[in-house]
Amino acid sequence: MIDLSRRDFGKLFAAVAISPLPQPQAGSGDWEAVRREFSLDEDLIVMNAANLCPAPRIVNDVLFRYTEDMDRNPSLQNRSKFGQGREEVRSKLAAFLNVTPEEIVLTRNTSEGNNFVSSGLELAAGDEVVIFDENHPTNNQSWKDKAGRFGFTVTAVSIPTPPPSAEFIIERMTEAIGPRTRVLAFTHVTNSFGTLFPAKEICSFARARGVLTLVDGAQTFGVMDLDLADMGCDFFTGSSHKWLMGPKEAGVLYMRADAQERLSPSEVGVIGGRVGASRIYERLGQRDDPCLMAFGEAIDFHNRIGKARIERRSISLATALKEELSKIPGVHLYSPTAPEISSAVVTFRPGDADIRGLNQRLYEESGLACATRGGETAGLRLSPHVYNTDAQVDVVLRAIRGGIASA
Amino acid sequence: MIDLSRRDFGKLFAAVAISPLPQPQAGSGDWEAVRREFSLDEDLIVMNAANLCPAPRIVNDVLFRYTEDMDRNPSLQNRSKFGQGREEVRSKLAAFLNVTPEEIVLTRNTSEGNNFVSSGLELAAGDEVVIFDENHPTNNQSWKDKAGRFGFTVTAVSIPTPPPSAEFIIERMTEAIGPRTRVLAFTHVTNSFGTLFPAKEICSFARARGVLTLVDGAQTFGVMDLDLADMGCDFFTGSSHKWLMGPKEAGVLYMRADAQERLSPSEVGVIGGRVGASRIYERLGQRDDPCLMAFGEAIDFHNRIGKARIERRSISLATALKEELSKIPGVHLYSPTAPEISSAVVTFRPGDADIRGLNQRLYEESGLACATRGGETAGLRLSPHVYNTDAQVDVVLRAIRGGIASA
Repeated sequence: MIDLSRRDFGKLFAAVAISPLPQPQAGSGDWEAVRREFSLDEDLIVMNAANLCPAPRIVNDVLFRYTEDMDRNPSLQNRSKFGQGREEVRSKLAAFLNVTPEEIVLTRNTSEGNNFVSSGLELAAGDEVVIFDENHPTNNQSWKDKAGRFGFTVTAVSIPTPPPSAEFIIERMTEAIGPRTRVLAFTHVTNSFGTLFPAKEICSFARARGVLTLVDGAQTFGVMDLDLADMGCDFFTGSSHKWLMGPKEAGVLYMRADAQERLSPSEVGVIGGRVGASRIYERLGQRDDPCLMAFGEAIDFHNRIGKARIERRSISLATALKEELSKIPGVHLYSPTAPEISSAVVTFRPGDADIRGLNQRLYEESGLACATRGGETAGLRLSPHVYNTDAQVDVVLRAIRGGIASA
Repeated sequence: MIDLSRRDFGKLFAAVAISPLPQPQAGSGDWEAVRREFSLDEDLIVMNAANLCPAPRIVNDVLFRYTEDMDRNPSLQNRSKFGQGREEVRSKLAAFLNVTPEEIVLTRNTSEGNNFVSSGLELAAGDEVVIFDENHPTNNQSWKDKAGRFGFTVTAVSIPTPPPSAEFIIERMTEAIGPRTRVLAFTHVTNSFGTLFPAKEICSFARARGVLTLVDGAQTFGVMDLDLADMGCDFFTGSSHKWLMGPKEAGVLYMRADAQERLSPSEVGVIGGRVGASRIYERLGQRDDPCLMAFGEAIDFHNRIGKARIERRSISLATALKEELSKIPGVHLYSPTAPEISSAVVTFRPGDADIRGLNQRLYEESGLACATRGGETAGLRLSPHVYNTDAQVDVVLRAIRGGIASA
């Protein structure tokens, strides 16, 4: 038997460092080059960012390399780096959202963040929560379930699609606030039609009346150039796997400093983050640390391209789609076109075409990956992002024209 | 511009299947061969399964390949396979634990499972929850926090270490149950000293009195040959990243069929699993589907070796460690030695040696990765598993002897 004890392991285990990865050329202004940072199938046109995005290769490289590193050496000594690493990710997220690390909690996804709020506030009979009826169903179901359990009431605000103006949205949302309203839970950009809410004005109105605001940012985190300090919300939630193009099952919950004491944790443990809200709200047991490191890498990827450039690019692709779709006979555009209430989400009814059939044909014949919706506002949803090219917009428009014409 | 629309994509996108992976030789009875299924550093002796295990290469292969598959083609069409895939993982877990798929919820980890129970039961002033004081601190803190919030009381049972017998544990735990007791939350094997609780007898007693049982299985899921139907608990929780040697941030919550209606979900969404409890308790937003597929692969890996063989092997390694450690002058063994209350967790005080210093020296000089504990029962914890060899046990014992002698 080899006498291992005589060897000197100090050097071997001192630092299983992740070596630097090549920098993507995403800052070059060349969107074709940005697309090459992804391992997307060459012939696939993915316009479904509102649901789930691919991650650039560098994000998976970080995920895989740290996972392999842990499995080569799962000792507590080797893993101690993740404590500091997690705080660095938190700081990156805080800077990305223009808030402090003390206000950032690393969650599983938007749904978990929303649930931390709806399960964590002390609400009882006599209290009212105002929601927007086109919040993601997960968000609204969470409030309704808990209302049934704890006795508070939920009032849903309806707004026609598309709304006539930002001012109209502000009026509808703020006039719903009454003397018993404790929380206003709305969506920054709707996943249904991509309507952008004037969050700052609504939050300001609510704050002046002592009403807490929860802004569901699933459709803006990673695509809009966000400044949550300026927005003035109390809680904001987002997911890594959508527009941020990060790893799956990671997300962010922003908790404004002075709102933190209004909440109790529904998920309780003993080891949390090191600062602020994370000490209490991130006591979530063993995490997938490599995934959290990859979350940080996705932020870096965004910063290399530039948040403002990403927002302009996605909006520009969506605007081009909206303009051309509107010209196709039979197409009814659901999404707003006024810039002040528009986003990178484009939803439309493709004439009388069978939606499921058209969706599958667009995928099989043209490689278009998008989403469908049913019901009274049935249609297709396109949500383009930085990995889409101008040429792909042309292909998609041609394919939709052809699909509708032959329906 | 290339006219993509003229191509036939049907074939291309029809099936981005994961091709079969090579089968590990883990069933051969050769524990050296089992170790070769892992990418562990050659000179590292990992005896820290009670905290976190490496995953065999095949588990990461599945994780990485599905992740890459999603990033090549993130379309809903390509990802539809994960719906069925998740149900297959659920069925594997159900068979592994001898319960039904309708009773299995795929969680993040043991902590989340415990919190789903402590946040989900309707407990109020006048109700009592009985806990064992050496439950994992996360479990107990969760009950105490929620008692403070919702008004119920928590009573902690103490048991000396090591307890004299299984009968003694049963007496202490059951005599704590009073007329107001609604829940009994205890640990199957303690993470502190590896004491095995006679869970079946305790659960049977509690059930006869209408008291719900939550069994924290963090230290038995993946190492003991479990049969939850036989155990008769109401709730059981476990993590993938410990003894199961699965991916990080996945876990299981078993909810006995007739206990499900006693609970409400604290995490609410709209899309859950397809059967039983998962419909309500797995509505957790977008998951890391590749991670859940890898969870299933870890179950397969266990089944190829055999659950009973894994249990015997880990216990055998721990027993060898206990016997030899007891012979070292100055060593005080905290862990039980009676088989009926013993597990694969070995905790001891290494004489008067400085524990942190010894721990680091054992790591640097002999490659031993273990855990330490402080306080009145300060010491080292060794938790060996199937990737440890008999030769490693010898190396560890020699290194500990040397470390204590030179202290």
